[in-house]
Amino acid sequence: MNALGKHLLLELKDCDREVLNDLSFLKGILLAAASEAGAIVLGESFHQFKPHGVSGVVIIAESHLFIHTWPELGYAAVDIFTCGDSVQPGKAAQILINKLGAKNHSILEIQRGILDTE
Amino acid sequence: MNALGKHLLLELKDCDREVLNDLSFLKGILLAAASEAGAIVLGESFHQFKPHGVSGVVIIAESHLFIHTWPELGYAAVDIFTCGDSVQPGKAAQILINKLGAKNHSILEIQRGILDTE
Repeated sequence: MNALGKHLLLELKDCDREVLNDLSFLKGILLAAASEAGAIVLGESFHQFKPHGVSGVVIIAESHLFIHTWPELGYAAVDIFTCGDSVQPGKAAQILINKLGAKNHSILEIQRGILDTE
Repeated sequence: MNALGKHLLLELKDCDREVLNDLSFLKGILLAAASEAGAIVLGESFHQFKPHGVSGVVIIAESHLFIHTWPELGYAAVDIFTCGDSVQPGKAAQILINKLGAKNHSILEIQRGILDTE
């Protein structure tokens, strides 16, 4: 039973609140995490919310990385969705957990695209 | 116990294979689904893969909608991540299921951001 994609849903709590509101920093670490994991970056889009919070996506040839932050709560939701065997999503996850200073985290792994024909 | 966000993961199988490779069509229905669900669209980014497949995101003020398609398998992975009570993610899901002609689908709902302080 093969899945087309692996989807990691990260719940990152008790993060460094300052960096959660720093769009440039978040863009940098998402791009770095994608590259370090072996992904090919195709594009990115980030948005700063007022009074606080950032949403950002990095589209990779192998799917995407997403972050939504709540700096006022020290919380970030991160998704790492990858296809194929050339990318190491767990490596990207570990980089983001470290860079955001998450003192408390959980990772849910979901298999996407489990098809009868696979 | 309140969650900051609601995340729907849609597995859409036995879809209309032609539309799964039609970037313009997919962009149109994701934007329409976001609007119909009551979301405020902030941006979008879509990529066409060769020989087939499309990845696309619509960033909304309330989080995001994502699609990855495998036209050759009739399969699409869709995420609808929303925050707050002003958006109806189930409505967006139903629109996408219908427009992609998915004869077989499942929806997994994940609560994101369940914090002790909530």
